[in-house]
Amino acid sequence: MNEQQQTIRWGIMGTARIATRVSRAIHAVAGAEPSVIASRNGERAAAWAAEHNIPSSIEGYQALLDDETLDAVYIPLPPSMHHEWTIRAAEQGKHVLCEKPIAMNASQAEEMAAACREHGVQLMDSTMWVHSPRAREMKGILDSGQLGDLSRVTSAFTILLDPIEDELRFDRQRGGGSLMDLGWYNIRATLWAFGSLPERVLGSGQYENDVDMRFSATLWYPHDRVASFDCGFNLTRRKWFEITGTTGTLVCDDFLAPWDPSRPRYWTHDAEGTSCEQTAEPLIQEECMVDNFCQIVRSGQLDDHWPQITIANQRIVDALDESSRTGKVVELLQ
Amino acid sequence: MNEQQQTIRWGIMGTARIATRVSRAIHAVAGAEPSVIASRNGERAAAWAAEHNIPSSIEGYQALLDDETLDAVYIPLPPSMHHEWTIRAAEQGKHVLCEKPIAMNASQAEEMAAACREHGVQLMDSTMWVHSPRAREMKGILDSGQLGDLSRVTSAFTILLDPIEDELRFDRQRGGGSLMDLGWYNIRATLWAFGSLPERVLGSGQYENDVDMRFSATLWYPHDRVASFDCGFNLTRRKWFEITGTTGTLVCDDFLAPWDPSRPRYWTHDAEGTSCEQTAEPLIQEECMVDNFCQIVRSGQLDDHWPQITIANQRIVDALDESSRTGKVVELLQ
Repeated sequence: MNEQQQTIRWGIMGTARIATRVSRAIHAVAGAEPSVIASRNGERAAAWAAEHNIPSSIEGYQALLDDETLDAVYIPLPPSMHHEWTIRAAEQGKHVLCEKPIAMNASQAEEMAAACREHGVQLMDSTMWVHSPRAREMKGILDSGQLGDLSRVTSAFTILLDPIEDELRFDRQRGGGSLMDLGWYNIRATLWAFGSLPERVLGSGQYENDVDMRFSATLWYPHDRVASFDCGFNLTRRKWFEITGTTGTLVCDDFLAPWDPSRPRYWTHDAEGTSCEQTAEPLIQEECMVDNFCQIVRSGQLDDHWPQITIANQRIVDALDESSRTGKVVELLQ
Repeated sequence: MNEQQQTIRWGIMGTARIATRVSRAIHAVAGAEPSVIASRNGERAAAWAAEHNIPSSIEGYQALLDDETLDAVYIPLPPSMHHEWTIRAAEQGKHVLCEKPIAMNASQAEEMAAACREHGVQLMDSTMWVHSPRAREMKGILDSGQLGDLSRVTSAFTILLDPIEDELRFDRQRGGGSLMDLGWYNIRATLWAFGSLPERVLGSGQYENDVDMRFSATLWYPHDRVASFDCGFNLTRRKWFEITGTTGTLVCDDFLAPWDPSRPRYWTHDAEGTSCEQTAEPLIQEECMVDNFCQIVRSGQLDDHWPQITIANQRIVDALDESSRTGKVVELLQ
């Protein structure tokens, strides 16, 4: 670690399962340290701090935000709490890395982004895969013209969940549902590949107790480009995308996170069926994300890409949800 | 070849490019022979007979049908001619193997099937891949329960065509368009996997001169099953399907015809990302189709599966075309 490099001191707001991975990443990244863990329950926070080697713990999220030694917070709270706690964090001058989905709807996301801008702090959602060397390599292929004109993104993200063990994901009031929880990533893949919002979308969910257990979507983009995906809680684990151009395809069968973390792979295919497997540097994607975030904070220059793409992501979620619930194609204002 | 086995004598109605492959298959299959080739142009028929080792040639399709020594005909004419010539062939007591799409619409397909039934002859469309040992093996996996409850079929069939060289495919009046020409196969894959008609469909095509160059479709089936596909004339070559259940997936990246005919392969994947590649017996699929057809003819027992599935295939094509042209979800009567 560079001696001049400012260490970013992190507060972690909540003890959700995902916080384990991100706090481990904050530990691992040079120039970052997880300083405080907060929970509504002080004893739970203390136990979690001991288990995950966090120097201190605190009861209550606002108490954490009042800690003036912290630079940034990571928010693994349920989506229904993202809006309030991101804005409160911004008001306390804390940079915010927030779990996905960023919010309950795009209006909330826009208010969160505005609050962060107003208080001069970075907002980023915790979509990890886009920060990996593999994602950068694949994006280089898309941008190189090797696949010709890109016209189609097909993707799938499904898992088989136990509704009892995963109650948050089955609770619409707190931001559950397969579109919010999983489809978020499929949508990010299309934003990442096409670089723009769709013009219109059609979604169709399968609901239990007002929560979509599975979701199918079609997204129409300018210039005759189309994306489609399915996501869901009641199918075997799939996490692939295929991006198609006039002269070739790019396939990644585990874009969310490599099946084998030591071999993050992907393929290009040509029109004769010849495939070329490539392997990227096996950096841990959550560490890449934390490192990228810390570099932005350290630079003093906020990066507007991240709030903008998370708002776009949420807008598409909203449009698909509306489409599915009304049975109609929904147009997006560009 | 069994000495008692009746040799099925075939007439080939037209010299389209695809006829080369099927006549070669008829040559190769024991108990089948390509006896006559017909064309509107007698000289073209004679030249084609010489080139492809067909014993005789004839000018005009009706003249071929009048040949009482023929048992069966293969019809590689444009889709707009299938209805007329299948019914005429049935009236002459000829069994009919007809290129896909079977007709211009499902009413025509139903009339063709009725004529064949009335005259006691078999009707089958020339969808080759379903006849291969690989398709049988894969179907065995689907039926075995190994993948759990099957809930999703995703597929793609695209090619990059030169509009000048492939004028028939760009002519709606003769049955062109990517849905009729390519989507036919994606639809067959869903019928093959799910074994029933969808309840409703949504299609969206991209049109040039009233012909769909590309098509995206979503098909909703009973019991929360969904299929989606894309097909098109202006993307790189893709010909894959993925069939998903609660506990695993079946993937074939060349279901239309193996990239490497000597290694017809497919994969099963489990929920941990472990994939198992399997290779089926490398029989030539058009020979398997001709052989299956000849066995039905020889048995004297018409097989109603083939006319029924081709009508179903055409009904889905019709519904998707209507959906795309009206912008609405189209319901199918079960």
